[in-house]
Amino acid sequence: QYSTGVRRVTLIPGHGIGPEITVAVQKIFEAAKVPIEWDEVDVTAVRGPDGKFGIPQKAIDSVNENKIGLKGPLMTPIGKGYRSLNLALRKEFDLYANVRPCKSLDGIKTLYDNVDVVTIRENTEGEYSGIEHEIVDGVVQSIKLITEEASTRVAEFAFQFARDNKRKKVTAVHKANIMRMSDGLFLRCCRDLATKYPDIKFEERYLDTVCLNMVQDPSKFDVLVMPNLYGDIMSDMCSGLVGGLGLTPSGNIGKNGALFESVHGTAPDLAGKDMANPTALLLSSIMMLRHLQLNEHADKIQNACYAVLSEGKHLTGDLGGTGKCSEYTNAIISKLN
Amino acid sequence: QYSTGVRRVTLIPGHGIGPEITVAVQKIFEAAKVPIEWDEVDVTAVRGPDGKFGIPQKAIDSVNENKIGLKGPLMTPIGKGYRSLNLALRKEFDLYANVRPCKSLDGIKTLYDNVDVVTIRENTEGEYSGIEHEIVDGVVQSIKLITEEASTRVAEFAFQFARDNKRKKVTAVHKANIMRMSDGLFLRCCRDLATKYPDIKFEERYLDTVCLNMVQDPSKFDVLVMPNLYGDIMSDMCSGLVGGLGLTPSGNIGKNGALFESVHGTAPDLAGKDMANPTALLLSSIMMLRHLQLNEHADKIQNACYAVLSEGKHLTGDLGGTGKCSEYTNAIISKLN
Ligand SMILES: CC(C)[C@H](C(=O)O)[C@@H](O)C(=O)O
Ligand SMILES: CC(C)[C@H](C(=O)O)[C@@H](O)C(=O)O
Repeated sequence: QYSTGVRRVTLIPGHGIGPEITVAVQKIFEAAKVPIEWDEVDVTAVRGPDGKFGIPQKAIDSVNENKIGLKGPLMTPIGKGYRSLNLALRKEFDLYANVRPCKSLDGIKTLYDNVDVVTIRENTEGEYSGIEHEIVDGVVQSIKLITEEASTRVAEFAFQFARDNKRKKVTAVHKANIMRMSDGLFLRCCRDLATKYPDIKFEERYLDTVCLNMVQDPSKFDVLVMPNLYGDIMSDMCSGLVGGLGLTPSGNIGKNGALFESVHGTAPDLAGKDMANPTALLLSSIMMLRHLQLNEHADKIQNACYAVLSEGKHLTGDLGGTGKCSEYTNAIISKLN
Repeated sequence: QYSTGVRRVTLIPGHGIGPEITVAVQKIFEAAKVPIEWDEVDVTAVRGPDGKFGIPQKAIDSVNENKIGLKGPLMTPIGKGYRSLNLALRKEFDLYANVRPCKSLDGIKTLYDNVDVVTIRENTEGEYSGIEHEIVDGVVQSIKLITEEASTRVAEFAFQFARDNKRKKVTAVHKANIMRMSDGLFLRCCRDLATKYPDIKFEERYLDTVCLNMVQDPSKFDVLVMPNLYGDIMSDMCSGLVGGLGLTPSGNIGKNGALFESVHGTAPDLAGKDMANPTALLLSSIMMLRHLQLNEHADKIQNACYAVLSEGKHLTGDLGGTGKCSEYTNAIISKLN
């Protein structure tokens, strides 16, 4: 899929702390001699010919050409006409599967020590269809859209992901007891795919039950696949179990491209103070390396990152430490070998 | 609202372990001299004139007359034509607010020891509207319905609940960044109500963020109010934090009636073995007593229940013990004073 030799990757530093955590990743990649050339673009909202704000054309062209990108947090201005740029990117490139691994990390103390789950979130429809009407005054309907096509491709992605990553089980998460037709369709697609992956255990569970079981015993779960909104919730919840959005990576994958991103906010109050935590973006960039089949580089950087975290010496403020972003970055670099 | 003297209360024992946990509650109430007369009805699905299965008329009449009920778990047969009887009851009596307090209990060891939250769930619309279509083959839409009327009454309920129960804060939980119109309307109704309750702190938070923060630090939250599906998820999640559905009560409140229920399953494999945990139904019945303004009886029974739990001697199997339902019940009775 990708040419060997040097890969060109679109880089979207983003806003707030985005630029400095991006620099951290770039430094680490350089030190690790990752064969990547960055194509840096800005994704501040611009007003299009229709008067609406959207992604600058230059950024779209870059992702279309490189088919792979790394992105920091984006600020969406508040007000009429603005839609989340994060969502706009997922939509623009039809990035239909959102992959969020959550794994307990040595050195990061939380209430849980055995979390190792991956949520695979349908990334294009469901409650995120964007279709809403006010029928009469004070009566609004939003459309939850579930299609066989989108459900099948994300289910297939989940099973293939499980197989590729030597995972044992896929759990389909749903409320088909309530939304019999929409979640029912999603569930049927998962069941169909399950028969094609007899090597992977399949189970189906209600969303509410999964939430309850997850906070009691996360080791019950492995790979989870679910419609868009449920994935939004579950991935944040699982992230909370292992230390928060500053520590969990995310990848948006489509047929013609992939975008890896930290899903935390822009933290404008921390920006420029060398206090930001680059871990989520770094772990996302490691996911990206694996996607590019640069597994040796991925392993090397990941080991260095985990080693530094486990020593607990350079934890940033969000993790209860006083470490600086630059020190943490240098510590990781010094552990590369 | 209710006559003094002896109150008549509809009692729906339900299926599986339902009857035995109901007997436990009845025994405790008798010992505590609660001035209640039970009107016991069966709610096994019956086929109506339209061929659909539903609630027996006798049960409907009883709740309509008594305006208050206590109910064990119901089994919904699987198959076409069956809808959840739990939902049917909420709908039939327009029980628009679902109240689920989750509180850490002495003697119940979980990862958390400082949970004290109440989820107030809109109980009649949202994704539970029941309106779904297959538009073309493989394309399904479900309608999420949000109305000003239902949002306002549940928001008002939440603020009034907070005031009556000396709570400090109400958090509106939403995804108005995605569903701008529907969740936007819900949020606006909450904001409007907030201005009428200046004594209660108001905050608004994204659902995903609340899930993340809740598993990290539940003490951040107090009363939460939210649309139907979100409440389904959050209430189960919070229940998980304090030990599960066997320990958390639930009340469905409307203008013309109220139904208190344990929300765990029927556990048919445990039925008839004196192994069931009656705590959730007992705590629900205590909520019911407070609703009837029988606060002294409520306090007495609650203290006895908490005391027995905190001793940890009679914990049932679901809580990791070997206690019997009857022994646990008798222990509570012996602590009434
Ligand atoms: C920023 C927001 C629109 C987004 C979402 O709701 O999907 C975020 O919560 C996420 O999970 O990436
Ligand atoms: C049984 C089911 C229909 C119900 C729901 O989804 O509301 C349950 O999960 C609940 O929370 O009471």
